[in-house]
Amino acid sequence: MGRWEPNARGRLEQAALELYVERGYAQTTVAEIAARAGLTERTFFRHFADKREVLFGGAGTLQELMTGAVADAPEPASPIDAVAAALQTAGAMFQERREAVLRRQSVIAANPELQERELIKLATLGSALAEALRRRGVTDPAASLAAESGVAVLRIAFEQWIGDTGQAELPQLMRASLEELRALTSALR
Amino acid sequence: MGRWEPNARGRLEQAALELYVERGYAQTTVAEIAARAGLTERTFFRHFADKREVLFGGAGTLQELMTGAVADAPEPASPIDAVAAALQTAGAMFQERREAVLRRQSVIAANPELQERELIKLATLGSALAEALRRRGVTDPAASLAAESGVAVLRIAFEQWIGDTGQAELPQLMRASLEELRALTSALR
Repeated sequence: MGRWEPNARGRLEQAALELYVERGYAQTTVAEIAARAGLTERTFFRHFADKREVLFGGAGTLQELMTGAVADAPEPASPIDAVAAALQTAGAMFQERREAVLRRQSVIAANPELQERELIKLATLGSALAEALRRRGVTDPAASLAAESGVAVLRIAFEQWIGDTGQAELPQLMRASLEELRALTSALR
Repeated sequence: MGRWEPNARGRLEQAALELYVERGYAQTTVAEIAARAGLTERTFFRHFADKREVLFGGAGTLQELMTGAVADAPEPASPIDAVAAALQTAGAMFQERREAVLRRQSVIAANPELQERELIKLATLGSALAEALRRRGVTDPAASLAAESGVAVLRIAFEQWIGDTGQAELPQLMRASLEELRALTSALR
């Protein structure tokens, strides 16, 4: 009891994703996830509040990576360049874990409640990026506009990537989407 | 029973907003809303599924207005110009009902569950605008990018407008936000 289990969190995440794909999210219990991971329920609850949070535990990491990239963008970077740097960081992270990301996405796509949770996490991410831009001295509405259109670019590039047969890399799709947004808005009359 | 009540829907909406502001959303019952409007609960449920839907009944109208504006934008209009037309339509609608819109917003801001519902409605609006652009022959990802960045512009201009003392008109704020987005993205290196 309480002894250290090597990579318990990662094992629980993997076991949960496997079960959600095999049996469906609603049909899977915490007991089954723990058993599949070779761990106890008690260990599960040391890492996650409930079975839903297994799917969203990575959101904090993503947000830290992206706000860190905004903060670290070299000083002459414009707001959109700082957001572009954050998108590259996020793209590289997802690309590295493509299989797990695709599996997670298939679980979320099958469950409206999880889709709502995903929307909330994306809105939170947008607010955090805007705040990171304001800490760089960017004022509103520019900070919010750059952050929220950045999240729109992320979502759309992500959807292209998961629909793709695997040829395009996500960081390249992010860059292409951002350039497309520039082209689109430049046509404003 | 079943007799026609003049403008029952509008009276119920107004009564609900008044009570939500006075007593709080959670503390208000459908019976109280109906009584305040001088109508029966039965009439309430002919118009709304529950007390939450009183706040979101306008989302369908907004979506129709905006997708209609995209569809009706004169043929040489670029995707972003079609979105700009939709934003003008939405801005004019909100501006016209400023008092009720502000009241509704204060109720939503006080309740996380309602904020989540609002996020879902905005995501649905983004999808509908993207679909309206595709019907104009705009391909993805351009259709989704123009639609979703348009929704970001709407949200941000809306927040400026409700935070404003009432001097700036929403359609002008929408236009200024869209131009700011163009300026921001044009700085992409």
